[in-house]
Amino acid sequence: MASPSSALQSEIDALCSTARWCYARGWVPATSGNFSVRSIDGPAERIFITPSGLDKGFVAPSDLLEVDKEGQPVASRARPSAETSLHLVLYRARPEARASLHVHTVCNTLVSAHYAPAPHVPITDYEILKGLSGVSTHAHVERVPLLENTQDYLVLGRQMTETLAHYFDAHGVLLSRHGLYTWGQSVAEARRHLEALEFLFEIEGRRLSAGPGFASNRGE
Amino acid sequence: MASPSSALQSEIDALCSTARWCYARGWVPATSGNFSVRSIDGPAERIFITPSGLDKGFVAPSDLLEVDKEGQPVASRARPSAETSLHLVLYRARPEARASLHVHTVCNTLVSAHYAPAPHVPITDYEILKGLSGVSTHAHVERVPLLENTQDYLVLGRQMTETLAHYFDAHGVLLSRHGLYTWGQSVAEARRHLEALEFLFEIEGRRLSAGPGFASNRGE
Amino acid sequence: MASPSSALQSEIDALCSTARWCYARGWVPATSGNFSVRSIDGPAERIFITPSGLDKGFVAPSDLLEVDKEGQPVASRARPSAETSLHLVLYRARPEARASLHVHTVCNTLVSAHYAPAPHVPITDYEILKGLSGVSTHAHVERVPLLENTQDYLVLGRQMTETLAHYFDAHGVLLSRHGLYTWGQSVAEARRHLEALEFLFEIEGRRLSAGPGFASNRGE
Amino acid sequence: MASPSSALQSEIDALCSTARWCYARGWVPATSGNFSVRSIDGPAERIFITPSGLDKGFVAPSDLLEVDKEGQPVASRARPSAETSLHLVLYRARPEARASLHVHTVCNTLVSAHYAPAPHVPITDYEILKGLSGVSTHAHVERVPLLENTQDYLVLGRQMTETLAHYFDAHGVLLSRHGLYTWGQSVAEARRHLEALEFLFEIEGRRLSAGPGFASNRGE
Repeated sequence: MASPSSALQSEIDALCSTARWCYARGWVPATSGNFSVRSIDGPAERIFITPSGLDKGFVAPSDLLEVDKEGQPVASRARPSAETSLHLVLYRARPEARASLHVHTVCNTLVSAHYAPAPHVPITDYEILKGLSGVSTHAHVERVPLLENTQDYLVLGRQMTETLAHYFDAHGVLLSRHGLYTWGQSVAEARRHLEALEFLFEIEGRRLSAGPGFASNRGE
Repeated sequence: MASPSSALQSEIDALCSTARWCYARGWVPATSGNFSVRSIDGPAERIFITPSGLDKGFVAPSDLLEVDKEGQPVASRARPSAETSLHLVLYRARPEARASLHVHTVCNTLVSAHYAPAPHVPITDYEILKGLSGVSTHAHVERVPLLENTQDYLVLGRQMTETLAHYFDAHGVLLSRHGLYTWGQSVAEARRHLEALEFLFEIEGRRLSAGPGFASNRGE
Repeated sequence: MASPSSALQSEIDALCSTARWCYARGWVPATSGNFSVRSIDGPAERIFITPSGLDKGFVAPSDLLEVDKEGQPVASRARPSAETSLHLVLYRARPEARASLHVHTVCNTLVSAHYAPAPHVPITDYEILKGLSGVSTHAHVERVPLLENTQDYLVLGRQMTETLAHYFDAHGVLLSRHGLYTWGQSVAEARRHLEALEFLFEIEGRRLSAGPGFASNRGE
Repeated sequence: MASPSSALQSEIDALCSTARWCYARGWVPATSGNFSVRSIDGPAERIFITPSGLDKGFVAPSDLLEVDKEGQPVASRARPSAETSLHLVLYRARPEARASLHVHTVCNTLVSAHYAPAPHVPITDYEILKGLSGVSTHAHVERVPLLENTQDYLVLGRQMTETLAHYFDAHGVLLSRHGLYTWGQSVAEARRHLEALEFLFEIEGRRLSAGPGFASNRGE
């Protein structure tokens, strides 16, 4: 990894710290999940991303893999994760994004399993929605697009491109029975989106498991 | 922030420690929540409160915003959170209060979502009720007032003023699908109330999700 | 507190460490719970117990209150908790006990609320039962006696005395919608009983909340 | 314990670290669980295993018991756990295995209690299945064999031998209402299998407790 600028280094540190925090919460078990930041300040766009198979509980800046915007490694021999391509799709579809987080949690797995094959999970009427950038009221309806899981990353990349265009103001994308992708203009914003969405998925997961006698989802 | 007295500084340290502890438990996700202490010992009443948008996992005394009893910043440029006005309402309605805590938890969200639009959540027959100041028996019926959520803080402030007058011995107020406000004569007392109420909300949340075959809420 | 022997000091350290560990797990919220060790090695029996109202997250050996076997403070001005009398009852009923732990957990509260007013909670057919001293098979039926909660500690003390005589091989006692008392010949044994019983209460709490379609309690 | 090679020492350190991590998560309560590594690099095969009755929250390399492939202690007086025999059975049935982990969790207990007396728990269509070695798609059906619990370890050893032969590609074995055995070619691989399987058991436990209205298990 080339020596990055001080601002980029700070974002890389924040990314690794966020990855370790996610591991401690059980959100990236069994070396799952991946995390990246994008730099557009140098002569060429660069993505710094966690490599395949790494235990996220111990990730450090020197573990990150530097790739160009086509996903080709720059000065590194580590193998990019197959899911690197989805980070690239995200960065193309969201030009303002500088950080992208992908986690596998019990609650997002339960929620996506329950709602599939619906095209999105609707969530509304919770104050925490204001943790999503641009949302100023609990009355906002957040539609989290939901894609069917597949091992064909070419297909998945195309579907994610279409979905991000269609749900132009979405803050995250769910892969069914797989996990969540979210992003932000900084690691801090991406992490805020992650915390808000996972809080909502935990509420939704508990609500669903309570049966029809419990509070309804006002977004449906 | 002016240099506060040693006793006040100690309360401010306890407040920040409590905020970080709440973050670690997932009770103030996505920069939500706010925390304050009130000083009435100097020449004029002062409130020291967490600023808008700060990640509560890292809050330190120097991050706090000092405002007067009308909510006007004193010697600081940080923007007071919109919810600062609710802390001021609380301090007016509860003259003995010196600390106020506001958290968003999965369990208080579920409980308030379930009981709304009832005017309060009734809780009784739990030993932990004795963690609330002035309560000496599990037979006490704690009625936690429940307000509908709104982004109109003027309306919310008026409703909270009325509610705190009506429920004159309440230890906390719920905003529906939003969060809990609680307070105390010190940070330690406010935190004790927070721990007792959230413990009760977790029990109530699990009881509700169990359906009609499980233990009933004897307070209803 | 007089300077205790090295072995006693080690038990006192283990007791405080266990109390802080319980606090971190949310098992003694809002200054609830109490913890004691008994010394019979000196000229007179002594109990070292956590004082009333203390936050268990920060308890240190110097916080403990030394009382005689009637509960009278020895060389200390701190107020013994009303529940000190139940520790004394336990030590009288279980001569081999040297440590006693009392916690308020979400799961033991739910389980006791569900089974009351039955005289005991029956638990069998779990391997973890072997964590209870003297139990060598999962087929063991542990009957955890269940007492109705009351603020009359004289009545409660008498009932606990009778219950401990009747359930002569019990490893813990539940107070309904209140908490658990458990004990051991050392802090380590008492903590092992605590961990085993709370694990079983968590399983039982989750099983109950699942409704009739889920695994049944084979002990009923 | 004889002075092991540097590579073996590194595995022993990782094993103890994993055991302490499991304790912190509540996966080996009340001194339950056991953990081992196998060395085949010296003149004779050796197993290094946690002794009976040890609190796994504090296990250090010097606590481990060294036994030969028949389970006889080598240069040590500590008592091997009765479950040592199951580790030996596992190592015989899986020649490539170098580490074996056994935990008691709330979720694996609930899941095994629910599915018994079925011969296995079927799990499919979750991305996290790819955390299991050799699995490259979420469409994989993992069948986790399920044995009835017994205190007769000779019987259990024979049944586990048969089960491991029949389920030749299984990554773990459940003992009903008891716990999970999993293994790997290294401590890191065994831990990855543990994290993946327990994540799946937590999802399955929550799904089951939600009743028929929730997402179905596509593996059934």
